[in-house]
Amino acid sequence: MESFLKQASQAKADIARLDGRTKSRILNEMADALERSADKIKEANAVDMQNGKSNNLSSALMDRLMLDDKRIQAMANSLREIASLREPLGRVLDGWRNDDNLLIEKVSVPIGVIGVIYESRPNVTADVGALCFKSGNVAILKGGKEAENSNTIIADILQEVLEKNSLPREIISLLPDSSREGVAYLIRQDRYVDLIVPRGGEALIRYVSQNATVPVVKHDKGLCHTYIHKDADFKKAIEITINAKCDRPGVCNAMETLLVDRDIAIDILPKLYEAFKEFGTEIRADEEARELIDVALATDEDWDTEYLANILSVRVVKDIDEAIIHIRRYGSGHSEAIVTENYTASEKFLDEVDAACVYVNASTRFTDGGAFGFGAEVGISTNRLHARGPMGINELTTYKYKIYGNGQIR
Amino acid sequence: MESFLKQASQAKADIARLDGRTKSRILNEMADALERSADKIKEANAVDMQNGKSNNLSSALMDRLMLDDKRIQAMANSLREIASLREPLGRVLDGWRNDDNLLIEKVSVPIGVIGVIYESRPNVTADVGALCFKSGNVAILKGGKEAENSNTIIADILQEVLEKNSLPREIISLLPDSSREGVAYLIRQDRYVDLIVPRGGEALIRYVSQNATVPVVKHDKGLCHTYIHKDADFKKAIEITINAKCDRPGVCNAMETLLVDRDIAIDILPKLYEAFKEFGTEIRADEEARELIDVALATDEDWDTEYLANILSVRVVKDIDEAIIHIRRYGSGHSEAIVTENYTASEKFLDEVDAACVYVNASTRFTDGGAFGFGAEVGISTNRLHARGPMGINELTTYKYKIYGNGQIR
Repeated sequence: MESFLKQASQAKADIARLDGRTKSRILNEMADALERSADKIKEANAVDMQNGKSNNLSSALMDRLMLDDKRIQAMANSLREIASLREPLGRVLDGWRNDDNLLIEKVSVPIGVIGVIYESRPNVTADVGALCFKSGNVAILKGGKEAENSNTIIADILQEVLEKNSLPREIISLLPDSSREGVAYLIRQDRYVDLIVPRGGEALIRYVSQNATVPVVKHDKGLCHTYIHKDADFKKAIEITINAKCDRPGVCNAMETLLVDRDIAIDILPKLYEAFKEFGTEIRADEEARELIDVALATDEDWDTEYLANILSVRVVKDIDEAIIHIRRYGSGHSEAIVTENYTASEKFLDEVDAACVYVNASTRFTDGGAFGFGAEVGISTNRLHARGPMGINELTTYKYKIYGNGQIR
Repeated sequence: MESFLKQASQAKADIARLDGRTKSRILNEMADALERSADKIKEANAVDMQNGKSNNLSSALMDRLMLDDKRIQAMANSLREIASLREPLGRVLDGWRNDDNLLIEKVSVPIGVIGVIYESRPNVTADVGALCFKSGNVAILKGGKEAENSNTIIADILQEVLEKNSLPREIISLLPDSSREGVAYLIRQDRYVDLIVPRGGEALIRYVSQNATVPVVKHDKGLCHTYIHKDADFKKAIEITINAKCDRPGVCNAMETLLVDRDIAIDILPKLYEAFKEFGTEIRADEEARELIDVALATDEDWDTEYLANILSVRVVKDIDEAIIHIRRYGSGHSEAIVTENYTASEKFLDEVDAACVYVNASTRFTDGGAFGFGAEVGISTNRLHARGPMGINELTTYKYKIYGNGQIR
């Protein structure tokens, strides 16, 4: 493993010298290669699917695992989209002259070697590999055991293109030892690895956070709220909350808890109840809400739970302050929304709610690299530092200062 | 300790609601209070000095520890300077409309609770406390044992001003348990603490990096090079290298190794030798350089050593590529400089050398928050992520996205 990490670290210099046009060309070649190799990919994927069946993988996981021509096409197109993104390196982020007449420029540069740990969907291998490549980083990928054959063939195809372009395979590679011990080793190699991005279950993320010496940008849970303020437009409020809960209940930017102002509860709660009924949403509410709608009682645990399912907890609050206190206590700092037509309330919510993404009159579902316009995303960071919220290629860069002098001394 | 951290964490909301003018006024009040309490500070400092004497502290450390009227005045003025800095919160760092017509704004916000671990100089207590305060963060400060009495009185004075303004003392406080165990506990409380900044010896920094679960921004060593390219202006080259080595040999941005192009070695090395002789610098050089100047032989260990003393290692290199390879191998990613009049060489060096600060024709000594124009600094980060190089108040902020919609759903 150490010799592998050494090679990965050395590959930094190889990728650093590629210009944007070359990187885009290579990414397009990778896309073509994936399409050309569709049969080989489906073959390898069939083995994973067979194993998944033997291991009684849930139908949801089986669906995420499955690759067909359409999905391979989508994977290739995603690479083409990444190829077409604006060059993320060399952006002048800031610049000024200091009092000594030095010209100081803050310029974006690659992070270095990035380890990404993820699960299930094999397209992540291509996507994350391509995002790291575009941003000038070396990618070490550790996918789920259940997708091992699919990930291996996809990585092989990308690596063949690298080699054809006289570049080392280590620029995009799978972690050679994908066991628990392999991961444990990887996350402590701060000499060779510059960043670890864990995407997956809470246990994985906790393990990595507690044990890594390499900096970690977490892709952790989202316990998101929508707060309907008394001055909300009811039509917007109902559309936004239905979308935030029901569009894809299993994802991190879905709403888990709905907060409703007392002043309008009697008017809007029955309407919401009817709307959610159509989507089969299970509602659990506090005592006050239950006087207006016939649903189960929410316990303290409900406020603290990311359901990842079509379940919603509902609470009536006195006012915006009580809503913010609730969010401060139970929110996970991911995405929070207010629905209101009131200017002062909207500004107060935007300022006082501490989360990666704070919305006025929009669904929390927009917290996503694609929706933000970043192209593909590496994940959604729940860190406070380095990157917060959706991570695209710019979030895979850091910076250095270039300082232009003419003989200055102190 | 946990109840203290809980209170510190709760104080985040109290400081978050202060506007820039209020924060500046309070910082100026703190400066006045420090000046008014000069006698009390000197009294406490005398106890530390007495203890230092009993413990045979080196004269350098004793000097750093000592507070007199002039230094207390300087400490107060530093607070006034921080008060006058531009408000670091609420800066719109980026903003755009996405395809759904959402207006997305990336806005600077405080990091939260910041733990700073430092040594010796008691003015750091006031400086770092003030920088955290200005940037809306709660500061937990852990100074050196040798400055305990001075730090305690300084923190007390700042806290009295906080209380007079109806703010909780926990906004700026010393770590209640300043033992080794206290630090060990602090750096694993990711629930309450958002960032740890260790400033100090290598052992401390290694310990914190290896054991923290809280994100760490290191203030680690600087093994800085200056490379004199064959097209250098000799006058600039000599002034810059003398300054980089001799101005303050004991600091992290001082030069440790000088690289000289073979083409000019015979012309410039004897001149450099004479210049450094005037400053009493001990030179250790490779075989090739020793054919030109009469100095000791450098060993492999020299290239790898941050002397923190008036010692310089010198190596002759074939060309810029060899210089960059040397720096890549031995540099600590802190500050690196080239001296040249050649455009292509300067651009190549700026691009290919991976360090927080890369200089053309200037002394590495400029890597400093003050010299950069940041006002005071919290430290000089040797991290690649979050902050790199000098850290001022803007580096004590992170960001969130504010998203303005009008009913958008996905």
